[in-house]
Amino acid sequence: MTDFKKDFPILDKEIYGKQLFYLDNAATSQKPNLVLDTISDFYRSDNSNIHRGVHYLSEISSEKYEKARQKVCDFIGAGNPDEVTFTAGTTDSINQVARSLEPVLKGNEVMITGVEHHSNIVPWQLAGAKLRAIPMDFDCNLLMDSMEITAKTKLISISHVSNVLGSVNKIKEITGIAKDHDIPVLVDAAQSIQHLPLDMKDIGCDFLAFSGHKMYAATGVGVLYTSERFSDIMPAKGGGGMVDRVTLEETTYLDPPLKYEAGTPHIAGAISIGAAIDYMQNIGMGRIRKHEHEVYSYARDRLLETDGVTVYGNTEEMCGSISFNLDGIHHYDTGLILDKMGIAVRTGHHCAQPLMRSLGTEGTVRASFALYNTKEDADMLIEGIEKVRMMYA
Amino acid sequence: MTDFKKDFPILDKEIYGKQLFYLDNAATSQKPNLVLDTISDFYRSDNSNIHRGVHYLSEISSEKYEKARQKVCDFIGAGNPDEVTFTAGTTDSINQVARSLEPVLKGNEVMITGVEHHSNIVPWQLAGAKLRAIPMDFDCNLLMDSMEITAKTKLISISHVSNVLGSVNKIKEITGIAKDHDIPVLVDAAQSIQHLPLDMKDIGCDFLAFSGHKMYAATGVGVLYTSERFSDIMPAKGGGGMVDRVTLEETTYLDPPLKYEAGTPHIAGAISIGAAIDYMQNIGMGRIRKHEHEVYSYARDRLLETDGVTVYGNTEEMCGSISFNLDGIHHYDTGLILDKMGIAVRTGHHCAQPLMRSLGTEGTVRASFALYNTKEDADMLIEGIEKVRMMYA
Repeated sequence: MTDFKKDFPILDKEIYGKQLFYLDNAATSQKPNLVLDTISDFYRSDNSNIHRGVHYLSEISSEKYEKARQKVCDFIGAGNPDEVTFTAGTTDSINQVARSLEPVLKGNEVMITGVEHHSNIVPWQLAGAKLRAIPMDFDCNLLMDSMEITAKTKLISISHVSNVLGSVNKIKEITGIAKDHDIPVLVDAAQSIQHLPLDMKDIGCDFLAFSGHKMYAATGVGVLYTSERFSDIMPAKGGGGMVDRVTLEETTYLDPPLKYEAGTPHIAGAISIGAAIDYMQNIGMGRIRKHEHEVYSYARDRLLETDGVTVYGNTEEMCGSISFNLDGIHHYDTGLILDKMGIAVRTGHHCAQPLMRSLGTEGTVRASFALYNTKEDADMLIEGIEKVRMMYA
Repeated sequence: MTDFKKDFPILDKEIYGKQLFYLDNAATSQKPNLVLDTISDFYRSDNSNIHRGVHYLSEISSEKYEKARQKVCDFIGAGNPDEVTFTAGTTDSINQVARSLEPVLKGNEVMITGVEHHSNIVPWQLAGAKLRAIPMDFDCNLLMDSMEITAKTKLISISHVSNVLGSVNKIKEITGIAKDHDIPVLVDAAQSIQHLPLDMKDIGCDFLAFSGHKMYAATGVGVLYTSERFSDIMPAKGGGGMVDRVTLEETTYLDPPLKYEAGTPHIAGAISIGAAIDYMQNIGMGRIRKHEHEVYSYARDRLLETDGVTVYGNTEEMCGSISFNLDGIHHYDTGLILDKMGIAVRTGHHCAQPLMRSLGTEGTVRASFALYNTKEDADMLIEGIEKVRMMYA
């Protein structure tokens, strides 16, 4: 594996006179030059609103935007680009599904897991659904056999990878069970799209949500995959670009994907997702997975070997995040001291309060990895942790 | 007025070997170097997720994001920055209000005007409200005396400036009438924020929506101003960053503005709005208004003087867009030919089908102006129109 840090200008940065070790990738990833240049070039030479213009720039912009949609379609193995909608991010994607399915969900149940991010909890509550979680063991393995599907279960909505633990949920097993009960499945891929190859045809889910900013692209943009069999659900938002005929009395809509993209989309952001996909595919998702797995396993093993460290979660497959605490030291303090050594980690509940309650802690320290992280970063983390422990000894 | 075109790199561009004359600003504006550099610098040296991090980059990013919020607050004369929420754009802002007010709006009425963009029509229909429009005369002046407020009117939602005609609606008159009836007012400022000084305290509306990309900032970001007296309405979206306590049974929310910003916002985009405000304020909104008024009036007068041209709308104050048609020539054909001369205009219904029906046309040619446009651009447009007319003579 070549050192990919050189592609990410920010990773050259010094913090408090020390080299930056960025291990907060589950919160947001850094951006490679290819993405930065794509955004800059778009604004500097192509920028225009899309779809509805007859002029040159508008045609160029529309073409680049639709090319990005096609790249996403290919990247996730969607059936066709009409199944790919650009949104404002994972949270927006999930809220859109909640809004569209509200008539079905209201007064009924959504099945989630106990490791979910608040973005896969609150939207369903706002839609009037009750939540039920697939039980899990102490290591946070989902116990599928104990999943209680009822007549009221109208959707299963699960994270592919936990943003806290890095645990990979067995989504194919879940879509299999869901199919038997004819229940649609939404997969929150915010923490998997950048780490694992995804194939909609293989996974067989109905909705998939992810963000650009965690996969090396711009902030403020994301994707919602909606399988063709849900192409007739109501749009969550109304506005320009998604309608056929509008009167004050009644409106008819265009077909997907336009139907689900009201208003001017984040054109530069969508195009940046295309560039991020190019960047990842130039390396190869298999190669990324292999490298990340090596670094992740190495970091996790070293943490497990370190005295006075509790590591949370332990599932067959893991990637991205590792959550831990130092015995007797508050997660916030650990994070603060690591920061002073140039090591950027996140601390707190990571927007997963129900999981924190299961783990019996108010918060954790989370180190999260991207394709540019190396074993050296893991070594620095361990070195930092040893220093924190010495300060508190 | 200095020539501000030099601040906008794209305006140097040649289209089909001809100088670009960009007159599609109501669709989206171009971006000055200050905005481009701000976006690039953010990703290259500060990029991090905000609010929830203890590390250096996260603090820098959070600080810049909140500084942008303060700039918006000052720019629109809001009471305090908690009234300012970053959204995905005008359409998202309006949809959020529709979603939050749905319990009140459902089965009731929203008062709009006959010149509204679809983004100020469809969200209310999706929320289950009926629409009623303030009548207007042939020139598209609103006839306030004929506005039929009923017991069912729960909101007045009006564009400040028509995206088609450039007509400026008298929003202070409307907020005055609304106050007498204790009806909240939403102002769609997508076509005014970049042209006219706005002061929330003076206007007295309850909600104000606008987009970054039409005011020289990034795509995919916008603002929703919500007056403090509506700080207790339900959030339209759920997710991370906006909650206090989350259980599977119940969730409590933070106070505004965080309550209305579920998920990772468009951090770079919000910061780019701050930069765009800096850029405009460095020139001065008064100076921008004066220059734009001169160019706009000049262009409109020249169009009115040109044979075989129908110009739509005529109100006391106007800015931004001018809509017209050439007698006997389809708007699409006009736009296509102008494009070949390097003149970028938009053609069609401009997401305002009800207005098109009032005007008795399927579409118009729209030339729309920004602070960098000059009388020379207007001259080029007229020259182009003369050529189109000759081709069809």
